Amino acid sequence: MSQDFTLQCPVPVSQYSKVVLAHGGGGRLMNDLIAKFFVAGFDNAVLNTRHDAAVLPLGESRLAFTTDSYVVRPAFFPGGDIGRLAVNGTTNDLAMVGARPLFLSAGFILEEGFPLESLWNVVQSMRQSARAAGVEIVTGDTKVVDRGKGDGIYVNTAGVGIVEHELAIGPQSVEPGDAVLVSGDVGRHGIAIMTVREGLEFETRVESDCAALSPLVLELLNSGIEVHCLRDLTRGGLAAALVEIAETARVRILADEREIRVREDVRGACEVLGLDPLHVANEGRFVAFVAAHDAGRALAVMRSYPLGSGATIIGLVEGSGKLEPGLVRLRTQLGTTRILDMPSGEQLPRIC
Amino acid sequence: MSQDFTLQCPVPVSQYSKVVLAHGGGGRLMNDLIAKFFVAGFDNAVLNTRHDAAVLPLGESRLAFTTDSYVVRPAFFPGGDIGRLAVNGTTNDLAMVGARPLFLSAGFILEEGFPLESLWNVVQSMRQSARAAGVEIVTGDTKVVDRGKGDGIYVNTAGVGIVEHELAIGPQSVEPGDAVLVSGDVGRHGIAIMTVREGLEFETRVESDCAALSPLVLELLNSGIEVHCLRDLTRGGLAAALVEIAETARVRILADEREIRVREDVRGACEVLGLDPLHVANEGRFVAFVAAHDAGRALAVMRSYPLGSGATIIGLVEGSGKLEPGLVRLRTQLGTTRILDMPSGEQLPRIC
Repeated sequence: MSQDFTLQCPVPVSQYSKVVLAHGGGGRLMNDLIAKFFVAGFDNAVLNTRHDAAVLPLGESRLAFTTDSYVVRPAFFPGGDIGRLAVNGTTNDLAMVGARPLFLSAGFILEEGFPLESLWNVVQSMRQSARAAGVEIVTGDTKVVDRGKGDGIYVNTAGVGIVEHELAIGPQSVEPGDAVLVSGDVGRHGIAIMTVREGLEFETRVESDCAALSPLVLELLNSGIEVHCLRDLTRGGLAAALVEIAETARVRILADEREIRVREDVRGACEVLGLDPLHVANEGRFVAFVAAHDAGRALAVMRSYPLGSGATIIGLVEGSGKLEPGLVRLRTQLGTTRILDMPSGEQLPRIC
Repeated sequence: MSQDFTLQCPVPVSQYSKVVLAHGGGGRLMNDLIAKFFVAGFDNAVLNTRHDAAVLPLGESRLAFTTDSYVVRPAFFPGGDIGRLAVNGTTNDLAMVGARPLFLSAGFILEEGFPLESLWNVVQSMRQSARAAGVEIVTGDTKVVDRGKGDGIYVNTAGVGIVEHELAIGPQSVEPGDAVLVSGDVGRHGIAIMTVREGLEFETRVESDCAALSPLVLELLNSGIEVHCLRDLTRGGLAAALVEIAETARVRILADEREIRVREDVRGACEVLGLDPLHVANEGRFVAFVAAHDAGRALAVMRSYPLGSGATIIGLVEGSGKLEPGLVRLRTQLGTTRILDMPSGEQLPRIC
C-alpha cells in the first residue's frame, strides 16, 4: 500500500540520499529534514507551528504534548545522565509552551549486554528528576536489540501537560519591541559531554546545566508577565533558537554579545574544540521574549530563582520592514555587528 | 547524585547482570525486568496497574496515555512496515483501555546511512495508518546515531486518547463466569516477520495482521457490551496475554484450543520454526473478557466487522477458590488439558 502512496508523493528533493549525522545536529540540515519529510509528510495544522510541544484542545482544557528520544554518548556524564536528561528535556519542552508538566512516558531501547546496574542507575535518576520536576512517569515500554544494533541505552520520553493561562506562547506572538532574555550562562551541557568524550582535562570540571525549567517558567506566568515566546537552548544552542524564532516570526532580532554569559572555562574549552559557544547545546537554559514593558520585572523574577540567577536581557526585537525577515544580528565584543546563523554542518553529534 | 540514591536502593536481584535478548521477548524474563526495575523503580500507583495504557484524571476527563518503541527487523515486511506498526501498535494500546485515540507523537532514531527514500516510505505509511485509525501525529523528534549504533530506523510513538465510558476496563474487573473472546486467527504477524527473516518460502505468503483495533473496540463499547478487560496479543502472543491477566486478576481461565483459530499456513510455519502459535505475536488481534450475559452479543458485534469476522469465544473465567490463582488451563485438540504458561526464554527477538 505504501508503494502506491509513494507514487503520488515523490521523495522530497534533498542534498543527500542517505541520513548523515548532521541530520540530527540541530542545524540547517535537521531543519530541512523536519520540514520536508515530517511536517510535509504528516501534514497537519498542529505540526506546522513547529513548536517545542503541541498545544491541543481537549474538552474545556488545553493539553500540551511532546516527545524526545535521547541517544547521548556517553550515557553518564558530568552533572547528569541519560535518565536525568530524558526527564528534564521533555518537561522543559512542555514548559516552553507555558504548560504545567503532569505525566511522562518512558520507552527504553536496550542493547544486549547493557549492565542491569547501569539501567538501575538511570531509573533512579529518572525517578529523582521526575520528583523535582513535579511529574509522574505513568507508562513505559522496553525493547531489546541485538549487540551492535544500539549503544547501551536509548531512552524516549513523551510528556503531557496542561496549559493554565490565556497566552498564546510561540513565535507567532513575538512583536517588535519585545525584550529578549536568556536565563543564564550558555554552553555548559555541550562542553560537559565533549570534554569527557574527547578525554580533555581542564582546570575546572564543566558540569552539564541539565535541570527542570518548569518551576521558573510557571513563576514568570504566575507573576503576570506578558510572555510572547519561550525556547530552550538545546541542539544548535542559542544561535539556532534565535534564528528559528526570527524566521518563523518573520522579525529581526538584535542581540548584544556582551550580555550573553559564557563561563570562562566553557569559553576556553570552546576555543580548544573549535566551537562557537552560541552553537553549543544547553539542557537547563531558555530564551524568553517578553513585552517591553515587562522586561525588568521578568528579569527580577528569573534572578529570584537559583536556576535563573545569571539571567540577562540580551537584546530586542526590531521593527521589521526595511530588511529581509528572519535576520538575527549580533553586536560583538568589539562593537562590530555580525549576522548570526544556524549551525549548518555537523556540530556535536549525539549531544542529547 | 544518582550514586547516593543507589546506596539507598540496591540494584534488584536478578538472574542476569546484563541485558539479554529475552528481556525484550514478552515472556517471563521481560515481566520480571518490568516489575523489578521499572514498576519498583518509578514507584507510582498508575504504573502499578500494569495495563497497556495509563488512565489519568484531567479536569473532568479521563485521559489515556501510552508509549511503545519499535525496533522490528526487517523494517519492511509482508503486510506492513515499522511505520504502520508504530501507529497501530500505540493506538491499539489506547483502545485496550477503551479509549478513543486522539493524538500521537513520533520519535525517530535514524542510523547514519539510512536511505531517505525508505524514511519517506515510513512517513507515508504512518500518515496513512494514522488516518485509518482516526488520530493525528502532532509532535515529533529526530535523532541520528553513528553507523553501527542502530539498525536503520527505530520509531517511538506515544499516544493520547480519551475515555468516554464509565467502565473500568482492566484485569481488576475480570470476574468468574466472564466469557473470553479472541477477535480472529492468531500468529500471523510473528510468522510474517520470521519467514522473511529466515528466508523461508511457503506455498502462500503470510502477511502481518497489523491493523487498527479501535473502531472495533469502540463499537463494542457503543453497543453497551459490559466489557471487563481487553488486551492486544502482541509480544508473547495469546498465551502471555491470558497468563498475565489471570495472574493480575487472580483468577483461573479455561480455554479450548479447538476454538482458537490458527491459519493452516501459519500452523505449518510454526511447526517448521519450532514455535507454539499461542506464543507468537499479533498486531491486529485482541482478547476481550465480557460479562457472560453479553457473550453472544459481543461475538455478533465483532463478527460484523471485517477485522473481527473470525472472532470466537475461546473460553471462560472459572470460579476461583480451589486452585492456586493465576492459572490458565487449555483443553487441547485431543481432549486432554494442559497448563498454559508464558514463554520463558527468547522467542522472537525484535518482532515489533
